[in-house]
Amino acid sequence: MRTYDLGKNKSYAIYSAVRGDILGGVLKKGERLPSKRVLAADAGVSVITVQTAYDQLLAEGYITSKERSGYFVADVDVRPLGERPPAPCELLAGVAPQEYEIDLVAGSTPAELFPFSVWTKLMRKVLAEEGSHLLQRVPAPGDIALRSEIAGYLYRARGVNCPPERIIVGAGAEYFYGMLVNILGRDKLFAVEDPGHGKIASTYALGGARCAFIPVYRNGVDLKAVESSNADVLHISPSHQFPTGAVTPAACRVRLINWARERGAYIVEDDYDSEFRLSGMPLQSMLGLDPERVIYINTFSKSLAPSMRMGYMILPESLAVKYYEMFSTSANVVPLFEQKTLAAMIGEGHFERHMNRLKNYYRNVRQEVLAAIASVPYKTTAFDTGAGMHIALQCPQALSDESIKQTAAAMGIRIKCLTDYLRSSVPGYEKIAVVNYSGLKKGQAAAIADKFAKLGINLFRGGA
Amino acid sequence: MRTYDLGKNKSYAIYSAVRGDILGGVLKKGERLPSKRVLAADAGVSVITVQTAYDQLLAEGYITSKERSGYFVADVDVRPLGERPPAPCELLAGVAPQEYEIDLVAGSTPAELFPFSVWTKLMRKVLAEEGSHLLQRVPAPGDIALRSEIAGYLYRARGVNCPPERIIVGAGAEYFYGMLVNILGRDKLFAVEDPGHGKIASTYALGGARCAFIPVYRNGVDLKAVESSNADVLHISPSHQFPTGAVTPAACRVRLINWARERGAYIVEDDYDSEFRLSGMPLQSMLGLDPERVIYINTFSKSLAPSMRMGYMILPESLAVKYYEMFSTSANVVPLFEQKTLAAMIGEGHFERHMNRLKNYYRNVRQEVLAAIASVPYKTTAFDTGAGMHIALQCPQALSDESIKQTAAAMGIRIKCLTDYLRSSVPGYEKIAVVNYSGLKKGQAAAIADKFAKLGINLFRGGA
Repeated sequence: MRTYDLGKNKSYAIYSAVRGDILGGVLKKGERLPSKRVLAADAGVSVITVQTAYDQLLAEGYITSKERSGYFVADVDVRPLGERPPAPCELLAGVAPQEYEIDLVAGSTPAELFPFSVWTKLMRKVLAEEGSHLLQRVPAPGDIALRSEIAGYLYRARGVNCPPERIIVGAGAEYFYGMLVNILGRDKLFAVEDPGHGKIASTYALGGARCAFIPVYRNGVDLKAVESSNADVLHISPSHQFPTGAVTPAACRVRLINWARERGAYIVEDDYDSEFRLSGMPLQSMLGLDPERVIYINTFSKSLAPSMRMGYMILPESLAVKYYEMFSTSANVVPLFEQKTLAAMIGEGHFERHMNRLKNYYRNVRQEVLAAIASVPYKTTAFDTGAGMHIALQCPQALSDESIKQTAAAMGIRIKCLTDYLRSSVPGYEKIAVVNYSGLKKGQAAAIADKFAKLGINLFRGGA
Repeated sequence: MRTYDLGKNKSYAIYSAVRGDILGGVLKKGERLPSKRVLAADAGVSVITVQTAYDQLLAEGYITSKERSGYFVADVDVRPLGERPPAPCELLAGVAPQEYEIDLVAGSTPAELFPFSVWTKLMRKVLAEEGSHLLQRVPAPGDIALRSEIAGYLYRARGVNCPPERIIVGAGAEYFYGMLVNILGRDKLFAVEDPGHGKIASTYALGGARCAFIPVYRNGVDLKAVESSNADVLHISPSHQFPTGAVTPAACRVRLINWARERGAYIVEDDYDSEFRLSGMPLQSMLGLDPERVIYINTFSKSLAPSMRMGYMILPESLAVKYYEMFSTSANVVPLFEQKTLAAMIGEGHFERHMNRLKNYYRNVRQEVLAAIASVPYKTTAFDTGAGMHIALQCPQALSDESIKQTAAAMGIRIKCLTDYLRSSVPGYEKIAVVNYSGLKKGQAAAIADKFAKLGINLFRGGA
């Protein structure tokens, strides 16, 4: 059911043929075109059809008209232009990732855990209630209803006290990293954790900023390295660092805040999975220590679904003013429909119920993973701080990081090592596998014990 | 219906009180905390409640535990930290724009023109058919179904022949401007049209690129200025320039392509409202002239709704490869739900039917606006090229641009002048009002004639 078919459009065919002849040099500059009547008779079409084609050629400047004398080819430079069809670009067709039975790298929340029926019910409700209001342009920082619900949620779940006006909704964490380069300035030095998520440094660098790499140890970033770094911005995940799993203790947090105050620097608190602290309450956010030095970023990618590119950022007041100057005339990039649906989901308590279910689920998965690790008949040590969805697993008897990954791959397990996330060479980070269990499904988690046991054996047999 | 209430959570209250005392210096480094049993009795809670609070303080590093001797305050640096509540930032609360009866500046497609029932029907269908597939991470360039539908639409509506693999879906035009700075490099000189949309230059500059301003005349950009500009990138809207309404004739387009070829430069064809050519067919896209030199950008903001931040970009193969290297591991920022719904809307022919209705609507509005302009009893000249949704209206007898805007404002009409979009001083652009009629509603369009007539009179009376 197409309403438009150029192939059957006679005036387009004439337009296209004449245009082709002009661009191809068949019809030359100043040459007179056949009169509308003659061409219509020749082509077996109506004069109006030819008129439409000539009007189009006139509008596009291929021909000119002179009153009472007709239509003439305009002065179009026709050095070999031709209409080369664009070559297909296979790169952009999308990559088919290698299939693994178990993915312990890029795992994302299993889709069946998403409260799909609640979400669709809320979508229908939002559609019915908001109607064409959903078509309105969304103000730059996002829909105020969603920002209010996020503020309430942050207070209840994270002990963060922040007025909704300071919360900015955007299309995920990377989106905010890029925005921060613009707000803080690309002349600034951004210090990031090493090892860490490669996307953080690469997104800052993509935006044109310089990056420094700060080693991460068991207590989080190396304070001395921070203090001597000359950094203007420090990007950390103090509640649960990826991939080391390090938790920054209170004393270090306070020292970091004092460093930021003395230097006039900012700390980006990337709180990407703090809600998934599986034992005890989530750790206190650094934002509470000094809201004027801490930029807080979090997303719903892990708690809802990876296709839902929604996150939020909380800016200190001085930066909020700068943000407003730069972006107030831009529209928010997250569709209002998703924003209203998520606002309803939080507001009606579904989101927190969902989070509780998710945490229960992952508590079980974590137990099974820890049991699997314990069952390996060779010495391994799990660094587990009870937080997040990954565990750093030390395998001192493995031959090398490569052997860990290859042995796992041969068994259908995709896994990476700490060194894969390392930029500089921090010593002592060899032979540590990063077990990201967020993508494990029910049953897989139980079955993994056997794999791990075999993995332990194979690691050494394979290398013997 | 909250599932979590910290105010009623006794262990949180204990945690919070102890933490406050440590940060406030009441409890000092090394000091011994009351035993769990003593504190439980004091506070009238269970030992487990105190245990939970202490575990949290331990996890956050506020206290340490020594076996058989109890809990001690850790070495937390407590220079005046305090928990200052963040000050509300009124700037971020959102601006209430001044209300005008008629907005001839920022007008956007009236919501009632949006095929809302079709859209919601398709949304329901997509929900039912795709189910939890909608939760999948979307590959960087977007959902292939939508990209295929866009390719088909471009072929039918714009004569553009482009494989879907070359089309990238993103969150609107500005999003792509920012991305282009990253792909092309911020050391490049971006030439933009003057006068023009301020957002284009400001977004390139925000990304860190330098901008040059090229004067626009009746035939589009000044070719000589382009040729002597040293620009690496030329951003133009050849089918209908905003705000002048200029249409670049074929001869100039070919010269621009040749300029780009000789220089190795790129032309960004910003085709923002080409589909709204209200007489004749849409003008041929420059992409067809040379797909290796032209970067094509278009959005659905005007054709669907401004809240729908969806647009697409077509890259030459060399840049597509670069794009892929930079962004292939990023997820697409547009929710899959919206992508699938729009794909269905195009695929089932609804989109083109909607576009035809929209164009009919705007044809009527344009006629009424032109009639209104003709009815002004003073000399005015409308530059109308039959394209887009705005008309440049020359008012040579007006006193000044300020008098045009102020007189209009006094009558409840918001209007801007060409000079408001001008960076350098291109002569001859004074006393030209830019009439953007895209936001006019039924009835308003008819009523505007009267306003315009009075506006014409008032312009001169007011200034006499």
